[in-house]
Amino acid sequence: MRNLMVLGKLAFAGLLALSLVACGGSEKAEDTAKVEKKAETIHWKMVTTWPKNFPGLGTGAEALAKNIKAMSNGRLDIKVYAAGELVPALEVFDAVSRGTAEMGHSASYYWKGKVPAAQFFTTVPFGLTALEFNAWIEFGGGLKLWEEIYAPFNLIPMPAGNPGVQMGGWFNKEINSLADFQGLKMRMPGLGGEVLKKVGASPINLPGSEIFTALQTGTIDATEWVGPYNDLAFGLYKAAKYYYYPGWHEPGSAVEAIFNKDAFNALPSDLQAIVRSAVQQANLSMLSEFTARNNAALQTLVNEHHVILKPYPQDLLLALKKASDETLEEVAANDPESQKVYDSFKKFLDSVSAWHDVSERAFINARAGE
Amino acid sequence: MRNLMVLGKLAFAGLLALSLVACGGSEKAEDTAKVEKKAETIHWKMVTTWPKNFPGLGTGAEALAKNIKAMSNGRLDIKVYAAGELVPALEVFDAVSRGTAEMGHSASYYWKGKVPAAQFFTTVPFGLTALEFNAWIEFGGGLKLWEEIYAPFNLIPMPAGNPGVQMGGWFNKEINSLADFQGLKMRMPGLGGEVLKKVGASPINLPGSEIFTALQTGTIDATEWVGPYNDLAFGLYKAAKYYYYPGWHEPGSAVEAIFNKDAFNALPSDLQAIVRSAVQQANLSMLSEFTARNNAALQTLVNEHHVILKPYPQDLLLALKKASDETLEEVAANDPESQKVYDSFKKFLDSVSAWHDVSERAFINARAGE
Repeated sequence: MRNLMVLGKLAFAGLLALSLVACGGSEKAEDTAKVEKKAETIHWKMVTTWPKNFPGLGTGAEALAKNIKAMSNGRLDIKVYAAGELVPALEVFDAVSRGTAEMGHSASYYWKGKVPAAQFFTTVPFGLTALEFNAWIEFGGGLKLWEEIYAPFNLIPMPAGNPGVQMGGWFNKEINSLADFQGLKMRMPGLGGEVLKKVGASPINLPGSEIFTALQTGTIDATEWVGPYNDLAFGLYKAAKYYYYPGWHEPGSAVEAIFNKDAFNALPSDLQAIVRSAVQQANLSMLSEFTARNNAALQTLVNEHHVILKPYPQDLLLALKKASDETLEEVAANDPESQKVYDSFKKFLDSVSAWHDVSERAFINARAGE
Repeated sequence: MRNLMVLGKLAFAGLLALSLVACGGSEKAEDTAKVEKKAETIHWKMVTTWPKNFPGLGTGAEALAKNIKAMSNGRLDIKVYAAGELVPALEVFDAVSRGTAEMGHSASYYWKGKVPAAQFFTTVPFGLTALEFNAWIEFGGGLKLWEEIYAPFNLIPMPAGNPGVQMGGWFNKEINSLADFQGLKMRMPGLGGEVLKKVGASPINLPGSEIFTALQTGTIDATEWVGPYNDLAFGLYKAAKYYYYPGWHEPGSAVEAIFNKDAFNALPSDLQAIVRSAVQQANLSMLSEFTARNNAALQTLVNEHHVILKPYPQDLLLALKKASDETLEEVAANDPESQKVYDSFKKFLDSVSAWHDVSERAFINARAGE
């Protein structure tokens, strides 16, 4: 890592030198700081895991770059690359680590092969909601741990958005009890897939591009995707008619912004503060956008496309919850870093659940008359 | 308002002129824009409704000013005034409107005497949670309406924080049914108080400073305040031992940042973008802070101070919900502006409730095993 850091610092020093030359040499020495400020335009690349203009995610990355440019009066100009434009979707982590791009927009659970503990910083089955996750990150010690596990890769992480609680998934048959999950072939990557195995189903890992055909031809019986806003755009209602809730496997999937540490540290402190604020602004905006737009999409699915909306049966949810707890314990036992993150995560989850039992949960049940 | 606006613009032009003089006159004319940028430090005053360093609220205002200073590299320097330091707590609206201060940090429901529709932009009984409120504001048309109703006062509003769902309140006796609310003297200002009247209780309006003694001496039977984090600090457990939930009357009380329109519009566009981002950053941070801290305070209240934590009885909640709906309809019927805001609010509430029934609510109930 040391070589990488030196390289990054050298590259940035070169950029500064160039900008000074571009200003001309007529200013006095004591004005150098001001000259740098005036003339310096820093050009960054942001690589992302999303297709161009993917609703909420690709558009969120573009909005973030635009806000940073506006706040910095053009001093930090970030060009956004869709998946595959500069590097493939799942090479964002490596590209930012080595400095090919200064910044990335993705999700931490894609990197579990390199950093198993990273998956706690997107979402886990029966884990934290978006509201709770943000509280853990900023005021519960979460961010410090996330920074620690990314530090060896020369990366700085920040939460940059969240679509909220997802839907359970699309099924080509009715699910009436746990028994209906036996042998069920369901597309579900990651920890959710591990949980499915424990309750007798067969998780299938398919890229997004193959899901529709697999579901339509019966190669799979079911799939999860995101929520109504994205699922409607994807057309999944044409391949399956049962739409189950809630998304126990992804209760609030955090999007991450990652920064090459040398590039970030080389920014003047005002630009660092601008970047941090813009990322937090994006974090709340994305959640608000999905919260506002999901119901309209859900109504379209139900009323125009005659999707049958159903809750998962209670015995199935209880079995999934038990299997999820076991799965998380196993992940934690796998390596000391995962155990350390899980311990913090679990402590926060237990505490915030107790608080939300008497606040959020009690309130929204009372509002619903229950 | 016209005169005020003209005055504001003139005052700002004067400030700019002064800053130009301060820079000296040796720069070329075409460099004027750069000179302004380099030399100009804008000094603002922020008046607030909170006591100095009041947890979450006063501290939130200070953090906001600090972030804006860091992001602007000191170009926008905002001095924060606690309640009474420059103007009394409840004169924030007027002070910012007339330009005594460029910015305020308060809550919109304090201004219902001047702008009845303003109370929809803090919180209303059985209304939107913090998550839902932010979605209505940014993606459901809420902010546009808020800006419209504040425009005649030369003010620009933005949501700047939220403590989340509050607690129901402190009682000196057990509440087992709606019958126990008959004649009950409870401190509850605003719309919650109107709702109490409809179910047979007697709402009492007392300033914060008088609550403790009134509860201890039996002048009132019950009071609401905020949530565990603030209630513990306030020592209310020494005056009553029953602590009821949920806070049906304030499910997510938005803090507002208000700006004198002339002062805001006179900012260069990068500083405007910085202010907007910093306010949004503060908005999410405050919610995260309360979410993270309330449970620890709740456990202290229950385990160390032997507070008895109880849910409101179901028949009482149903009666309060019905009375709340009636109260909001009455407020809306009161003036066309309130009706317009209520229509937008109600449409969003119905839509987001339907979505959260299958997402947030279904998930957190499933996580709790229910």
